[in-house]
Amino acid sequence: MIKNTKVNATILIIGNEILSGRTQDTNTSTIALWLNSIGVKVNEVRVIADIEDTIIDTVNLLRKTSDYVFTTGGIGPTHDDITALSISKAFKLEYEIHKEAFKILEAYYKVGEFNEGRQKMVWMPRNANLILNPTSGAPGFNVENVFCLPGVPSILKSMLGGLQNRIVGGKPILSHTISLRTVESEIAKSLAEVQDNNKDLEIGSYPFFQAGKLGVSIVIRSEDQFKINKCIKEILNFIDEKKIEVVVR
Amino acid sequence: MIKNTKVNATILIIGNEILSGRTQDTNTSTIALWLNSIGVKVNEVRVIADIEDTIIDTVNLLRKTSDYVFTTGGIGPTHDDITALSISKAFKLEYEIHKEAFKILEAYYKVGEFNEGRQKMVWMPRNANLILNPTSGAPGFNVENVFCLPGVPSILKSMLGGLQNRIVGGKPILSHTISLRTVESEIAKSLAEVQDNNKDLEIGSYPFFQAGKLGVSIVIRSEDQFKINKCIKEILNFIDEKKIEVVVR
Repeated sequence: MIKNTKVNATILIIGNEILSGRTQDTNTSTIALWLNSIGVKVNEVRVIADIEDTIIDTVNLLRKTSDYVFTTGGIGPTHDDITALSISKAFKLEYEIHKEAFKILEAYYKVGEFNEGRQKMVWMPRNANLILNPTSGAPGFNVENVFCLPGVPSILKSMLGGLQNRIVGGKPILSHTISLRTVESEIAKSLAEVQDNNKDLEIGSYPFFQAGKLGVSIVIRSEDQFKINKCIKEILNFIDEKKIEVVVR
Repeated sequence: MIKNTKVNATILIIGNEILSGRTQDTNTSTIALWLNSIGVKVNEVRVIADIEDTIIDTVNLLRKTSDYVFTTGGIGPTHDDITALSISKAFKLEYEIHKEAFKILEAYYKVGEFNEGRQKMVWMPRNANLILNPTSGAPGFNVENVFCLPGVPSILKSMLGGLQNRIVGGKPILSHTISLRTVESEIAKSLAEVQDNNKDLEIGSYPFFQAGKLGVSIVIRSEDQFKINKCIKEILNFIDEKKIEVVVR
């Protein structure tokens, strides 16, 4: 497989509820698909516990090894929401009331509803840049290349659009899927030859079960549509020769 | 939050399809719930790409820092299935035909169907211990504390039962959930006090939306049912005082 030399990111999921298996993470897929569309490739995902030292150490490592780090979770009002404090410590910045965030939430809530619990959500690293939240008011933030988003999937999703201009990506990462009515072992050798002929493309093979039938999806990924097209042709050639049924091409 | 001093594990998801966002990982939750039931706590999850050096380096790090490592993905017949080769290199073991695995698959397939592609699945690190696969034949394996499972969720699920006796866990990790018709900010202060009184329990707070209504689930986790019960009582006390509606207790 190829190593990415372009713009990359790591997703850091902060949350005991994912590690315990109670909650199924869906934010990785949301963030990754969005990043691909703006030319950023996700090199790694980590899920870590709500432990301050773990968050600090992991953020301080990843912000040096990745162009961008996206964290999810831990920016709500309860005692287990320690992302903003941990990021402050990671960057050795004051953890303090963010005036702009305070104004946003003061305006968002009805008079008397902006209570102590909610006020916790405006405590951030000094001079953090806000990430606006069109769903539930409380903003996320970024410090340098570390972007902190909430864990609730619908809220996170609604905040990505506002980030577009702050992420400098490369060419969008394109992909094409060919789905076949076959098994992997049938195409393994021919597909390996195609990969050999197209070393700078990422070619993946994924078995699936659909309506009780086995199948294989071949996924080709690259920034270069021309190269993808050439690869599709080579795959369709050996599929024709083997008389394999194509489900989606 | 508390640091786990008991038996722990890291889950290592190997697969470009998760990093690209194309596929939603569900194996983390399956493995984590099963591990909890046998007294093993998941400390971290990593998702990495199908890159040999990345797999080798990550496995060699994690097998020292975790009691157990569970990998998923990359043990099928195609060119992008490089987990067994990478694990061999990580442990500096020969990558060779595993005689017992060969016999299993020879018996599993009809005459003539155990072709070159399928034979790739019996190449493993020398003296690997097999993990039987009741669904589709091809076994997983472990070397020392590193357990290699397939990526297809239904197959992975069917293989965990057979592993039970090879994992030495601690006490099962128990959890209790109380679901409330409230918002997090309403209970944040009282819940923080309960956490302060019960420092060795893991207490998480998770907002939810259900049938158009907001709610909060409080999740208490510990190996000690007595401590969980004491904590439940303290939580129900402040909930009664605040006259918050309980959905599930």
